[in-house]
Formats: sequence, structure tokens, C-alpha cells
Amino acid sequence: IASKLPNVGTTIFTTMSQLAAQTGAINLSQGFPDFDGPQALREAVGRHVMAGHNQYAPMTGLPALREQVAAKIARSYGRQVDMDAEVTIAPGATEAIFCAVQALVRPGDEVIVLDPCYDSYEPSVELAGGRCVHVPLALPDFSIDWQRLADAIGPRTRLIILNSPHNPSGALISHAELDQLAALIRDREIFLISDEVYEHLVFDGVRHASVLAHEELYERAFVVSSFGKTYHVTGWKTGYVVAPPALSAELRKVHQFVTFCGVTPLQWALADYMIAHPAHVDELPAFYQAKRDLFCDLLGGSRFAFRRTPGTYFQLADYSAIRDDLNDVEMSLWLTREHGVATIPVSVFYREPPKDLRLVRFCFAKREETLRQAAEKLCRV
Amino acid sequence: IASKLPNVGTTIFTTMSQLAAQTGAINLSQGFPDFDGPQALREAVGRHVMAGHNQYAPMTGLPALREQVAAKIARSYGRQVDMDAEVTIAPGATEAIFCAVQALVRPGDEVIVLDPCYDSYEPSVELAGGRCVHVPLALPDFSIDWQRLADAIGPRTRLIILNSPHNPSGALISHAELDQLAALIRDREIFLISDEVYEHLVFDGVRHASVLAHEELYERAFVVSSFGKTYHVTGWKTGYVVAPPALSAELRKVHQFVTFCGVTPLQWALADYMIAHPAHVDELPAFYQAKRDLFCDLLGGSRFAFRRTPGTYFQLADYSAIRDDLNDVEMSLWLTREHGVATIPVSVFYREPPKDLRLVRFCFAKREETLRQAAEKLCRV
Ligand SMILES: CSCCC(=O)C(=O)O
Ligand SMILES: CSCCC(=O)C(=O)O
Repeated sequence: IASKLPNVGTTIFTTMSQLAAQTGAINLSQGFPDFDGPQALREAVGRHVMAGHNQYAPMTGLPALREQVAAKIARSYGRQVDMDAEVTIAPGATEAIFCAVQALVRPGDEVIVLDPCYDSYEPSVELAGGRCVHVPLALPDFSIDWQRLADAIGPRTRLIILNSPHNPSGALISHAELDQLAALIRDREIFLISDEVYEHLVFDGVRHASVLAHEELYERAFVVSSFGKTYHVTGWKTGYVVAPPALSAELRKVHQFVTFCGVTPLQWALADYMIAHPAHVDELPAFYQAKRDLFCDLLGGSRFAFRRTPGTYFQLADYSAIRDDLNDVEMSLWLTREHGVATIPVSVFYREPPKDLRLVRFCFAKREETLRQAAEKLCRV
Repeated sequence: IASKLPNVGTTIFTTMSQLAAQTGAINLSQGFPDFDGPQALREAVGRHVMAGHNQYAPMTGLPALREQVAAKIARSYGRQVDMDAEVTIAPGATEAIFCAVQALVRPGDEVIVLDPCYDSYEPSVELAGGRCVHVPLALPDFSIDWQRLADAIGPRTRLIILNSPHNPSGALISHAELDQLAALIRDREIFLISDEVYEHLVFDGVRHASVLAHEELYERAFVVSSFGKTYHVTGWKTGYVVAPPALSAELRKVHQFVTFCGVTPLQWALADYMIAHPAHVDELPAFYQAKRDLFCDLLGGSRFAFRRTPGTYFQLADYSAIRDDLNDVEMSLWLTREHGVATIPVSVFYREPPKDLRLVRFCFAKREETLRQAAEKLCRV
């Protein structure tokens, strides 16, 4: 059978997590915490499962949860969204992005992605019959190269996929940059997917510039987020997408035939928890900043070079002072096998990785003890 | 924004369940139980959520659950499948079908569906750039019309989607019919999706003829099933797909970018329960046959005409003796609004419904009390 996705292998996240398990390495590769979600949140699941909330949820998501999403958006970004017409619960942000792409992209359309980027974007576009145009972010700080972005826009451009806070670099897009983007696409029918799954992981007192807080861009955007990332339960596969009514309607047409709906008792539990703990999202930056700082302080004793990440729970590090002879995939395998710490190479997030890229990504969503053990190993490299 | 799915509205299931809720009608429309899954299964969820099983599952599904699926297939159909290469856990059978379609269907391909059929098939094919060729099942028993099926096969046929036990009619495909199908497609590169989500709901002592038990067809098939249907927890959105290794590999390429994985604690709970209660699936036919018989016995006092359904938890009924002036959509609305019982019209499962179709579908996956109340209302119609 000829493959519909001939360029796709197993994702790097599966490969590295499996290798970590096989070798017993500390797993700082795939992005998930090694600690648990809030106890009250987890208890709520058992309660709802026992209370009989086990049949299909509404296709658009449980109203109680959509209401909490709308309330959070009002608190965090000052936007009033209509929970019925604009908020859709999805079985994970990946599904939300996939459905948004299918709703927008027609055969022959071009989609601009900013490399390095998450590995689901391109196959989603290819399955819709579209083509990705890869615009590399500017090194060393992974900022948008406006000239290259402007040059990439053409008559077939249908969609631009943004991701801030940015995986893998942690880079943030500012509100001023959103203005710049708005000016660039003002007179064209170009839509946006804004992947903001790390929206609450922004450090050093900076505020996340959400597309939800940008009047003009929101009118043409799908804004995607993740309960899994925000509540430390990545295995619950529950996320959401917010978009103006006409865009939400098209997304839902796809979503109802891709998965139909998300998991009912998890949606109830998340709604309960969000009602009882609205401050959770406000406490997250300090919580993860402490982990970032601990990890970076400890890594300061190593030969890795890095700047503290401004967002996400990922820290990039340059290893050229250690093994300049290895590319980043080789380095990741070597670190895992020889030094017992699994990481993600950055080149896999690129169509064409820059020559001499010497960066690996560490996930610091880990307990203090895990971070100390990993850093100790990394300092010996 | 021009729609990618211009022919799609809100699914009938959403529409009718909402109308039932608004009007206070007894909801025999959308296919889900009004009773709960087994207590031990539900308790297991709370246990795993508290035990910290809340991060990403493997992309292909939890090994413990894939192992139980393989064991069940060996017991039920005598086939040894390789749990690593052939079994994939999916967030619901709908997602499994969607991914299988995307893995197989290329722009311009034709897909044969047997009408009436589940409403996700056609949009899934359209999103892949394919086209559905609709072959109506033969009335009154919804059997395969072999001549029409043979005539529908052409050089562009890529895929045939089977569904047995059949939603909405309950009709069963026999093993001899699978042989006939095998002969028909033997020398062509045509694949199968066999939607067997009601595999354990087969009545009157008949055995389900699974494509898993058919050597020749299985080699080109995706066989899809649903834990939600089998364990009375439709809101858990957990299903699986079994296919030969090469087909599974292509399905997984798509699945990893559509949703990546299913929900971790639910997979643990299902594995636990399947280990402890392997007989659950063997007890299901009698459990649902008793409901079918209760409902049909009571409905015998009404002016609806019907034959007892051989499978699924749906009962079709002909209302022409009651309101021959109404089409089935009108009849469903009228029954819901005026008589307090919500049903699904059968015409919505067709591209071109037969003229004078006078059938509605009742879901009898309900408590005895619900069935009695509904039947009482239906006998007054
Ligand atoms: C679905 S696995 C990917 C997890 C993640 O977001 C990452 O590691 O980048
Ligand atoms: C996902 S809603 C559909 C439920 C069902 O299988 C049916 O009612 O036919």
C-alpha cells in the first residue's frame, strides 16, 4: 500500500520516550510532567464517573466547561467570548489543530509554518491536500523574520500557524508583533491558527500576548489551548479551541466526524476544578519559573550554553562546547545512552535545519528531585 | 468562508438529543445507554487517576489494554493478532474510522458505502478528497444487493465500508456473505473498513461473523470496535482498530497527528476490567436481547409494525399505519413533540432515501422503566 504520508515516521516523542524507558534514562524528552495534576481535580473524576457521567458529551463540549473557558478568557485576556458559538472542547489540542486545518485548507492551498515547529502541523496540512511553506525563525532568539515571512506570502497562502509560547524554544510573540502581522495580512483572505497551549507558562513577569486579546487578528483565528498542559494531566487529552462563530461552525463540522466529542467525566472534573480554583492559571508562571530557575542554576555548572527560556516548560541548550562533532540527533541518542538523560533534538522540528545546529531541548516539567538528578548527570557530560 | 463540507449540518444525533432535552421527551434517539457501566470498571478509573496514571499514553495505546483486546479476539474469533503490530487504541470508533479513511483514500478515489449508513463515513471520505458511491441495501431486510454492489465497483474503487451488526437496521452480514465479498474483490486492490462496534450485540443465538474471522478479507481490512458500546460508557470515547501490520502502520501515521493518543486512566481501567471480567462480552447478547424483547413485546400493543432486530441496540419500526402522510423526519419530530418519545428518522442515513420510507429507529439501550414508559406512550400514538 502506497503511503498517504510517505515522509512520516514515528514521532520523535514516541521514539525518545521509548528509548528512555529501555535505557532507564531520566526522561526530559517528551513534554509531560512527572508529577500529578491537583488532587481535587483528580478526585473529581472519580466522583463524576461514579455519579454516572459516562455517556456522550455534547459535540461542542460540556456547557459547564465551555462556560469556565469563557470566564477564564474574560479574566486573562479581557475578551467576552460566546461560549455556545465560539468555544469548542476537543480531545486534545492536536485534534483541535487538525480539525482547524481541515476546515480551512483546500487542495493546492499554502500554509505558512514558522520553523522549528510542532510535528503535527505539516501532516495535517498534507492530509488536507495543502502544502506547507516553511519560514525559519531568526536565530539565536527564534524571533519572526518579518522579511522572510512577507516574502513567503503569496496568492495561494490560506493560513499561517503561530505558536507562542513557542515549542521548542520558549520564544514569545509580543502584542506589537501581532500588530505587525495584522498589517501584513490585512487585505488578504489569510487565516490563523494560534497554538497557545503554553499560554500560562510565561515567565519573568511578562504577559502572554494572546491572539484572543488582539481584536483584528482574532476575527480570522482559531486559538487553541490545552487543559493537559495547564493542569498537569497530558494523558487526559482534553483541550479547546476558540474562534469567531463562522469559523467555529466550520471547525465543528469537521470535529463532529473526526471524533464527535471529548470524554464526559473529564470535562465535568475540569469544570468543577476551574470553578473552585480560578487562581490555578495565575499561579502557574511562578510554579514553572521556579523549576526553570532550579534547572538552569544547576545546569550552570555544566558545559551546556543556554539562555533561560521565556516560556513553555522547555529549555534549549547548546552543546557545541561538549561534542561539536555530533549532530543533534546523535547528541540526543548519546546523552540518553551514555549519560542517562533523554532529550529532544531540535532539528526534527525543521523542514531544513540550519547547518551546525547544536541544540537539544530539555523538558523541566519535573519534580525537583528529577531535575537535580538529571542536572547532576548533565554536569558530568 | 467557503465550507469544506457544504452538505454537512449538525448531526441528527445532536439535533434529536437536544430536542429531547428541550421537550422533556424520553430519549430513544442517539445511541447511548441510560444506565451505567459496570461499577468495578468505574471504580478502576478513580483508582488510576489517583495512582498517577494521567500523562500521555503510548501513541498506539496502553500495552495492557492492547493485550486484552488481542486476548478477546483470540477467544471470540479464534484469530491470533499481534498486539504491537495490529492493535491500535483510538479515542473512539469514529476517530478510528476517520483515520483509516485518511490512510487509504486519495483524491479521486471512490469509496463504496451501503446505505443507510452512519453519517461520519461520507464526510471522512470527502475530507480525503474521495467520493462516496452509495449502494442501497435491499429492503425490507437491509441485506446486501450483490448485483448492485458488483455494478458499483469500478477502476477507481479504493475502499468498501461494511457495518455489521448494522446501524440503523440491526442487519447482520453472514460469513457466507463475507466469502461472496471476498470473491468479488479478490483480484482488485480494494480495501475494507469493517465497522463492528456492535460486534457483541447479536441475538437469537447467532454468532457475529467478524471480518477478523475471515482469513482472506482480514488481509485488506481495518476492523473497528468500541469499548463505549460494549461497556456502556459511550462518553469515554475509547475504541480500537485491528488491521494487518502494513495497514496498521499507515493508520498510525495518521492517528499520531489527528489525536496522538487516547485517555490514559480510561485505558488502564478498561484493561483491569477486561482481565477481571472476560465473560462480560459473552453476557452482553442475553442482556440486550432481554431489553429488545421487552421493548418489542410492549410495542406489540401499538400500531407500529416491526421485525425484531437481529443485532445492535436499535429497533426499526414502520409507522405507515399511523401517519402515512408524514415523512420520517416529520414523524420523528411529531413523536418527540406530541408523544414525548424521541427517535431517529432512517432517511438521514441515506444519500437518496427510498420513496415512501416510513421507518424510525428506537434505541433500546435503556432501563426497563424507561422502556416501559416509552412503550406506553408509543402504544397511545
Ligand atoms: C503528543 S507528544 C508531544 C508532547 C509535546 O508537546 C512535546 O514534547 O513537544
Ligand atoms: C456519536 S453519536 C451517535 C451514536 C450512535 O452511534 C447512533 O445513535 O447511531
